[in-house]
Amino acid sequence: MAVLCRPATEVPEHVITMDDTLAIARDKHRDHPDLGLVLRLIKNTGVRKRHIVQPIERTLAHPGFESRNLLFFEEARKRVPRVVQQALDHAELTARQIDLIVFVSCTGFSMPSLTAWLINEMGFNAQTRQLPIAQLGCAAGGAAINRAHDFCTAYPQRNALVVACEFCSLCYQPTDLGVGQLLSDGLFGDAVAAAVVRGGDQGWGVRLERNGSYLIPGTQDWISYAVRSTGFHFQLDKRVPGTMEPLAPALEALADEHAWKAANLDFYIIHAGGPRILDDLSRFLEVPGEAFRHSRATLTEYGNIASGVVLDALGRLFDEGTAISGHRGILAGFGPGITAEMSLGTWIDRRSERLN
Amino acid sequence: MAVLCRPATEVPEHVITMDDTLAIARDKHRDHPDLGLVLRLIKNTGVRKRHIVQPIERTLAHPGFESRNLLFFEEARKRVPRVVQQALDHAELTARQIDLIVFVSCTGFSMPSLTAWLINEMGFNAQTRQLPIAQLGCAAGGAAINRAHDFCTAYPQRNALVVACEFCSLCYQPTDLGVGQLLSDGLFGDAVAAAVVRGGDQGWGVRLERNGSYLIPGTQDWISYAVRSTGFHFQLDKRVPGTMEPLAPALEALADEHAWKAANLDFYIIHAGGPRILDDLSRFLEVPGEAFRHSRATLTEYGNIASGVVLDALGRLFDEGTAISGHRGILAGFGPGITAEMSLGTWIDRRSERLN
Repeated sequence: MAVLCRPATEVPEHVITMDDTLAIARDKHRDHPDLGLVLRLIKNTGVRKRHIVQPIERTLAHPGFESRNLLFFEEARKRVPRVVQQALDHAELTARQIDLIVFVSCTGFSMPSLTAWLINEMGFNAQTRQLPIAQLGCAAGGAAINRAHDFCTAYPQRNALVVACEFCSLCYQPTDLGVGQLLSDGLFGDAVAAAVVRGGDQGWGVRLERNGSYLIPGTQDWISYAVRSTGFHFQLDKRVPGTMEPLAPALEALADEHAWKAANLDFYIIHAGGPRILDDLSRFLEVPGEAFRHSRATLTEYGNIASGVVLDALGRLFDEGTAISGHRGILAGFGPGITAEMSLGTWIDRRSERLN
Repeated sequence: MAVLCRPATEVPEHVITMDDTLAIARDKHRDHPDLGLVLRLIKNTGVRKRHIVQPIERTLAHPGFESRNLLFFEEARKRVPRVVQQALDHAELTARQIDLIVFVSCTGFSMPSLTAWLINEMGFNAQTRQLPIAQLGCAAGGAAINRAHDFCTAYPQRNALVVACEFCSLCYQPTDLGVGQLLSDGLFGDAVAAAVVRGGDQGWGVRLERNGSYLIPGTQDWISYAVRSTGFHFQLDKRVPGTMEPLAPALEALADEHAWKAANLDFYIIHAGGPRILDDLSRFLEVPGEAFRHSRATLTEYGNIASGVVLDALGRLFDEGTAISGHRGILAGFGPGITAEMSLGTWIDRRSERLN
């Protein structure tokens, strides 16, 4: 039995508001034929502010792929250990008790993965398994939880650490002028998030019970990177916001396999890719929009922080303090493929048991 | 119980011999102060020939990161399905019976991973889990087998497909003139390899029993990519060939945990990073050099095919036909980190049982 413990999230200190974003778009793209549409789309995101690793002036310049990627890892080394330590503290574990690190990031690339540095730096065992995932985009948060769950199912006494490090602002491409790209410039934010999946019949939070993946057939080109000398160029097809229609049945099918009803759960931790994702999914699943309040809060306050969304939204469920033992929920990340990585779990709060 | 079934490997049609490699080095680097050393190091690799995806003249040109990465996926789409089909055939399974695809490659980068295309193209289920790994380098072959093993341990009736696609020639960097880089230019080759890890108490080959990772502390910079506008630049520290001294005890420790002796196994499938890796490991483990004949054959005939080595070397053990039920063996991939991904297994040949 594996328990997904309380996540930790940290966002950088530089803030860009919706008004800043709109002003920049108006200024930089004043001659763009679709400027009106772009501004409307950005307003519709509902993203009130985002946090980024460097001041906006520096973010808007492109110093080259190499400099940016180096900056990514400079910032990651500065920020990741704190978040990891907090996630370990939440799980009441030390680094030496972790057996697997799943490190996901689609916004910086390195070989070896940052896992090697983390193991050396934070005193993880030399025997810790490293599972870096760079190619699942926003779905990687869900995938990381699911692979950690699988690992703890295989080895019930072991613990896994999940880390999502996304500095989307370092993938800003000033020469990309498509509507989907300009929308993305107003949507994505930076964050580091982490959580422990704890085995050994310990820990409190979401007891993970079943997970699943689903790929919408024939959509592999809908969300993608063009890999260029200038780095990763995000490409978003305009059909993407409509993907909840084929994905809602995948969530329902997973719940059905578990003899649950997707429409009738106590909590929903959903990737907040954009506002329509959340609106449509609540409609197709027939659950009130309020059920997605944690995801919506992440989107509003931080923007789409890619693989970090599900961890941050889950953190907000912990903060809210309304979940009680026995509550059933679903967690789902969506990303390129188009892929859904889904998980079902039951809230378990051993703190109250300890008090009794 | 998970069985690693007979792998399939395919190498491209363009061949470059040791003599070709030496002639190119002499010609391109005639004024290099360390040319003599470089030629000696290349001769010492024992790589008789390598196979590459395009003619050597085109390989030596660098048309830019974007073109090369596009070429990577054009070649991958052409070559991977055949190898995957052969691996499925060896395991007597169809695509629809696969539950997880672990796709490893450090020589081309895409988002989404090629897994999405493969699922659409080859008729895998939409529910197939995708696990792309780009950041474990040569250790990724071992890591892929180990994560597939973990998955089948968690879900004993499921099957996993492992694919390694490495076109190292597309990471050739004409401006990199360090000794380690020139040596690498003479060492790495291209290949696609795949194998199924079959659950459900089915399949013949290596019954996987225990796996482990080991990171040599403080060596994270010894093998790395510099990520630049020109692509991935391989950087090799001269201390790497000496890493079998700290890694041999890690192999021994894993065997000890399983009450086996690493010195006393029936088969050894070892990453052939270079000739000294194999020489040193046989010395430190106190096993005859002949025990590593399959790895050495991969190195001699194909060069270091990165994450594909362990799969190809294992294929040669199947081809040789000397393994019998009950034989015990170890499989180990080594790569950046410096990381070892190790696995212990017992040969199981159900074909003979069927005949009885």
